[in-house]
Parts: sequence; C-alpha cells; structure tokens
Amino acid sequence: MGLDTKNDAITSRDVDFAQWYTDVCRKAELMDYSSVKGFIIYRPYGYAIWEQIQKYLDEKFKQTGHENVYMPMVIPESLLQKEKDHVEGFAPECAIVTIGGQNELEERLIVRPTSETLFCEHFAKIVSSYRDLPKKYNQWCSVVRWEKTTRPFLRGSEFLWQEGHTIHRTKEEAKHETLMMLDVYKDMGKDLLAIPFVTGQKTEKEKFAGAEETYTIEALMHDGKALQSGTTHYFGDGFAKAFNITYQDQDGKVKHVHQTSWGVSTRLIGAIIMVHGDDNGLVLPPLVAPTQVVIVPIQQAKPGIVAKCTEIKHRLEKLGLRVKFDDSDRTPGWKFAEYEMKGIPLRIELGPRDLENNKVVLCKRNTGEKIQTNIDELESVVQSMLKTIHEEMYQKALDQLLHSVNNAHTYDEFKEIINNGGYVKMMWCGDEDCENKIKEDTNATSRCMPFDQRPIGDTCPVCGKKATKVVLFAKAY
Amino acid sequence: MGLDTKNDAITSRDVDFAQWYTDVCRKAELMDYSSVKGFIIYRPYGYAIWEQIQKYLDEKFKQTGHENVYMPMVIPESLLQKEKDHVEGFAPECAIVTIGGQNELEERLIVRPTSETLFCEHFAKIVSSYRDLPKKYNQWCSVVRWEKTTRPFLRGSEFLWQEGHTIHRTKEEAKHETLMMLDVYKDMGKDLLAIPFVTGQKTEKEKFAGAEETYTIEALMHDGKALQSGTTHYFGDGFAKAFNITYQDQDGKVKHVHQTSWGVSTRLIGAIIMVHGDDNGLVLPPLVAPTQVVIVPIQQAKPGIVAKCTEIKHRLEKLGLRVKFDDSDRTPGWKFAEYEMKGIPLRIELGPRDLENNKVVLCKRNTGEKIQTNIDELESVVQSMLKTIHEEMYQKALDQLLHSVNNAHTYDEFKEIINNGGYVKMMWCGDEDCENKIKEDTNATSRCMPFDQRPIGDTCPVCGKKATKVVLFAKAY
Repeated sequence: MGLDTKNDAITSRDVDFAQWYTDVCRKAELMDYSSVKGFIIYRPYGYAIWEQIQKYLDEKFKQTGHENVYMPMVIPESLLQKEKDHVEGFAPECAIVTIGGQNELEERLIVRPTSETLFCEHFAKIVSSYRDLPKKYNQWCSVVRWEKTTRPFLRGSEFLWQEGHTIHRTKEEAKHETLMMLDVYKDMGKDLLAIPFVTGQKTEKEKFAGAEETYTIEALMHDGKALQSGTTHYFGDGFAKAFNITYQDQDGKVKHVHQTSWGVSTRLIGAIIMVHGDDNGLVLPPLVAPTQVVIVPIQQAKPGIVAKCTEIKHRLEKLGLRVKFDDSDRTPGWKFAEYEMKGIPLRIELGPRDLENNKVVLCKRNTGEKIQTNIDELESVVQSMLKTIHEEMYQKALDQLLHSVNNAHTYDEFKEIINNGGYVKMMWCGDEDCENKIKEDTNATSRCMPFDQRPIGDTCPVCGKKATKVVLFAKAY
Repeated sequence: MGLDTKNDAITSRDVDFAQWYTDVCRKAELMDYSSVKGFIIYRPYGYAIWEQIQKYLDEKFKQTGHENVYMPMVIPESLLQKEKDHVEGFAPECAIVTIGGQNELEERLIVRPTSETLFCEHFAKIVSSYRDLPKKYNQWCSVVRWEKTTRPFLRGSEFLWQEGHTIHRTKEEAKHETLMMLDVYKDMGKDLLAIPFVTGQKTEKEKFAGAEETYTIEALMHDGKALQSGTTHYFGDGFAKAFNITYQDQDGKVKHVHQTSWGVSTRLIGAIIMVHGDDNGLVLPPLVAPTQVVIVPIQQAKPGIVAKCTEIKHRLEKLGLRVKFDDSDRTPGWKFAEYEMKGIPLRIELGPRDLENNKVVLCKRNTGEKIQTNIDELESVVQSMLKTIHEEMYQKALDQLLHSVNNAHTYDEFKEIINNGGYVKMMWCGDEDCENKIKEDTNATSRCMPFDQRPIGDTCPVCGKKATKVVLFAKAY
C-alpha cells in the first residue's frame, strides 16, 4: 500500500470486463487472495459493505418476526444424506473433516455447505405442538462449497451469507413466508443497493436441491450478464418427512410441518460492483457506502482550511453520516483518484478561495457533476444530494434493465439476440430438454419464470410443442 | 417445549453446581446439543445475549480505531507450522479437512483454532512502509478446537468469539494496545455484564502459545472457581520474524512490526450464568438481557387489562427498552416462574385492582423485591430500577470477590484455604516447578500476577527460594 501501488489505471470495462472486475476488487481494497484457492480475505473496506447489508437485513428479519441462532459448522455425513435430492446436490462440492484431535473420526464431518439438515434435526427435537409453531430462524455465518472456478464475491469456496430457516403449521403460511422474504430482498435492492432485481420462480432444472419451489432475485450486470443474487425456497413437507418434524395439531392429529429457507450472500458485493462501477472504479450507493462523504482540502497548509474541514466533518457526522476527512500529505489529485476508485458517493472540496466566499464544491461520484454551495446550507444540500445520487443510480440501472429485455418468437431470433446480452423473454414448453438445448447452443440459462405470465406466444420456439410458461433467459455468472 | 417441559424445578446450586449449570443452560433455552459432541446449538435466547455483547464490543473496538475483516476458516497445515510455539500449542486439538470436492487434498487444511497465522500472512503482503502502520483489525467468527471434555459455553469444540489482531511500528505502541484492550474488556465486565474481573499477567506456563506476554480477565464463579474470561497478548516481533512482516521505517531501515492479539468468546455467557444465577434460574444484568422488562397481566380477561399492558409496553419501548408483554393463556404463576428462569431483570404485574388505582407492581429478579408505583411515573421508575439492578448485581459480585481473596504465607496454609474456593494470594519464586507442584497437590493453577505487586512475603512458600512475584491462585474451569 505504498504510494506507488495506488492510483494506477485499471483496465477499461469495455476492453476486458472480467479484468476490470478483478482490478476493482483489488485496487479498491475490497479483498485479497489467501493461500488457499477460492478462500478470500474480506478486507476492511469490503467487509464494511457487508456490515451495512447485514445491518439493513437483520433489522428487516427481526421486524418480520425472525430470531437469530447459530448452528454447528459441521454436519455428520449421515445427517446430510437424509434428504436424497439435497445430498445429491451438495455431495460433489463438500469439504470434509476426517481428523479431529489427532484421531481419524468415526464419522466424517461435512463443513456446512448450507444448514437445512442441522435446522431440521433441531426442529424435530424442539417442536411437538401446534403451539410451538411457527419457528422463524436466521443464521449469519460462512459456508464452504468446493468450487472448481472461483471469482471474488461471485463464486468462492467459502462465502459469507445469511440463511433463514422457518417451519410452519400450514402450506399457505410457508408459501407466504417464501414470497414475503423474496419481497424483503427485492426491497433491499431498491432501497439499499440501488439495484432493480428481476424476480420470479426458478424452473425445475434450476431450483434448489430438495426444494419444491425456488424463487430468485436476478440482477443485470453492466456486461449484459445476469447474476442470481438471492433465493427463497418453499420445501413443502419433504424435509419434514425425511427428518420426522411433526407436531400435534389442535385437532389432535400428528402432522408434518411446512418449511422454507432463504439466503443472500457476499455475492451482493459483486452485484454492486458490476451494476454500478465505471472505468474510475467502484461507485457505491450512498446507503451501503462505508464512507458516504469524503472531504478533500485544497492547499490545506493555508490558514483556516483544516479547521473548517474539521468543522464540516463534525456537522455532517451529527446527521448520522459516515464522513472521512483526508488531511494526509498526499496531493488533492491523488485523493480525488483514490476516493473515486473507492466509490465514495460524495466528495467535498474546500480551498482558500472557497473558504473566503464561505462556499464548498460538491462532486457526485456517479455522474462527476460538480456544484458549489454555501457552507451554511451544507447539511440540507448534502442530504438531498445523497438522496438524489441513490435515485439516479437506481434509475440508471432500471433503464439499463428495461432496455435489455427483448422478446423472442422464434428460436433463430432467440439465438441472435441472446448474444447482445440482457434478458430474452420466450415461451417454453416446460421440458428440461429444451432448456438443455438452449444451454448447449447459446450458453444461456433460464433465469426465472417472471410473476407476470402474460403469454407472448402459444408454442415453445425450441421444440414447437405447446408452451406453458413465459421464461426469461440470459447468460449468467 | 410443550407445557409440561417447562417450570420443572432445577437442581439446587448447592446440591450440585455442575448439574444446576446444565439445567439452567437447557431450561432457559440458551442452547441445545447437536449430534456432534462439543458442537452446541446457540438457541435464540442464548444467541441474543451474544448479540448484545457483540454490539457493545463492536462499538468499543471501532471507537478505539479497529476495523473488522474476515479471514478464511481454513489454514494450510504448512502455514500453521511457521511459528514453532504456536503450532505446538494448537496441533493436538485441530480438526483437519483432508477431502475437498471428492478429492484428497494435496495439502491438509486446519479448521482455524485461532487466526494469527492467517493475519500474519496477510499483513506481510499489505505492509511495506511505516505509513501503512498500525493495522488494527478484528474478526467475529467461530473457531474449532477438538476438546476431550466439553461443557456448554465454557469449553466447546466450536465456539463463537472475536479475535483482534494488530501490528505496530514500536514495541511501546503494541504494549499499549495490549493493555488498552484489557481495559476495554474489564470495562465491559463492569458496565455491561455486572462482573468484576480480576486482571493481571499470566505466568510463562499459562501464557498463550507464541506470545511474549499474556494478560487475562478472570471472573469468580458462585462455586468459588475462577473462569478465565478473555485474554490479550503481546507478541513482540516473534510472529513478525517467522512470517517476515517488515516495513521500511522513516530512517530508511527495514524493521519487523510489533504485534498483539486479543479475544473474548461465548464463554462470557457461561460467566454470566455462574456469577449471577440462582436456584430459580438465570439472572441477567439489564444491559445484556435480550428482554429487559416482562409485563404479566393478572386476570387478563377483565376489561382494560390488556389495553393498559399494551400501552405500558409501548411507553417503555419508546425509551429504547426491550419489553415483552405475555398475553398468552398460561397462568400468571407459570409466567412468573418462566421469566424468572429466563432471568428477565424486571417484571411488571398489572391486575384489576392495580388498574383501578392506576398502579403497577414491579418485581426485581435479582432480589425478589416488589414495589408498587403509580403508572404515571412508570418511565422514570423503570429506568432507575434497571440502573439499580445493575449496580446491585455488580456490587454483590464484587463483595463475593473481595471476600474470596485470602493470603497464604505458608504452603500448608495455602493447601488449607485453597479448598474453600476463591483466590489465594501467595508469593512465588518464578519457577514453573512450583506451579506444577501446586497443580498436582491441589488442582489449583496460577490465574494471574495482579498489577498490584506489593509483596506479602520474601520467599516462595513452596520451595523456600527467593520470591519474585505476587500470584493469585485458584481452582479454575
């Protein structure tokens, strides 16, 4: 982190998007690689973004009646195997503990790739009556999935996430929970991340191992690819039967519970980078930004500059804003570039001339736009600008999304437009073979069946059979 | 969790303290056992206590200039082996991942028992100049240590904790950090947990594997045994040399950094239970209690009772208090016992007669004392009572602690009074053999060398040689 390693130009987005992404991750100091492939180090700046997401979601989870718990980080192999589809989905990517306290273990322990089985075992123990329901739990932790190809935040052998696990008396209540949590995630996109998520149901092929129904939030990246950013699952009573989670209902009968799970992960940091970032680096939505305002003094040796900057810092912090005043001996130019790279939403510049006129210059990271304002009005101007920045970022991402959805009525049309990036809406017969063919021909996958199922045709353009679903396809991360 | 399993009496503290402890852990629904020995489930009520501790400490850490990060949960075996004392200390209790993605790994991975080695590797990469120092990092996570005998919260194969890791330019700065964080922990005891910690330095025999100096906070349990509740370590430049963490100083010379680490864990929950609990269950200090006030209606079917209780709840919540109103159809007697078991600091009772007189009854969990107050004055009365409860709990624990410290001037005297529980202060020659002999003869260990080193004698009562240190000995968990 010497002077030399900073402020180097990064690869342009349009030249090499993948390299641009990696450059931003490293240069903005979001993460570093560890010596184990796929296990990254979340550096302070990257982790602070995750903390903002945690704070927002944890409050929403509690408001909607959920409680936090913590389950063991290891799962006995026999426990993971209790639900057939589930183990088939996860077995290939397990990390396995075989030695403990210098002895070979009698039963191998799987480092949790997800914790459904642990929650199920616990639920079966603590629930006996309808009066014990619902149980609405959430857990913040990391999980391990042994991935062959890994990319920071997008796909890692270990990642941080939250996993909600709930059990309910009725199917209806569980389905309601599944969709309610999808809404919580979608609102988080709009209100916190400035990302418009496309929502809908996953096809059979794409759903979670063991789920009856999976719902998804999908974001569109700058390069036109989709990123699955979170999912909610309705399990029916499949796990309840495998794990014998029953309760005695009011009518005296013993019944199985109905279950859900749902999660988002540090992959959201990847979404923020790839939706909003530009050739100068990260562009952070104000509410998720660890530092929301940075104050850069011009000619800071001149009388009164440092004192006024300090005063501004304290005034803004009183509003509850996260503010940094950089009075280091770097040049203003270096500081501008550094905080642009770090995506700080608003920069305040103050030099001798400004001080004389009781003014400051404000510069918006998302547009580069600069305005001058009277220091007396600073509080209201800064607050309104941060609000505007959020709205502009959301609107820009929404416009990109809306422009990127195209309809295909023939398979040739599909194959042509899918290469432009973005989503292609197409009718589908419901047969996995057609999804497989599309994947093989174009590398695109069905992202979701959107809630708006108004048909745009009668037949599946791939096989010509009767269409049953409207599907959004895209190439995806 | 049916009606039947609650409200059962628990074992008395004086009959069987260990059984009492386990009963409280289970009946207060703090934890449950999982199917893997030593890995417990943190249930909502137990986890919520940890969340209060986290919130308090996280704020203190940030106020004192620390940043949160997240390191991988696995450590390559070769990395753990880089510091000789450190690996010797931890190797016997490692859980080891040998299989990933269905393949035998080329290098075995240790599930982190602590993360010094990971931080060191990272520090070596990101630090090059004195301008990069200090780095003051903290991590919230779980760690795994394969323990033979395990007890909920006190000793587990997996536990939750925070680990601070810092590197500094000078020895003085690192030593200052080590003692400052000990103060943060000690203040947490006084201000949050109502626990007076004894602080001091560990002897060579008891210090952390790889540390030059270890400092400790020790708490006295109701049964007279000590519980090491947190430690801070000064590493000198031992790890820096093993991991080659160097920086170029202002004078142009390349130097090694000076390092610290420090941590507390969910063991603090065990301390809260065993310092404050009584034969009716948990007694929680108000600031750490997930629910601070519980409102229990008497004859709740009578007109106006539920409405008034609801009003009281909202009024208290406006003060920022955590309040529960139990309007379930259980009896008041059941509710009294239940919330005593859960240690809720203050209970408010409201019946028809109270309502008529515009009064409520307030009952303090720590003393059982009941007072009546006018509902109009509720806010100020509740706030002042919660404050009083905290002070009374702290004072009671402090009195117990002060009465439990006895001086021994001969080894016979030591052997006699050590069996009464509490601390025995004795002079010590500095030789590990004497510590070993004491352990063998009495099962007591040196807890710390207190900061107050005013001698109480000239010779070590065990060997008769010249004494160099004042030491506090105790039997310990």
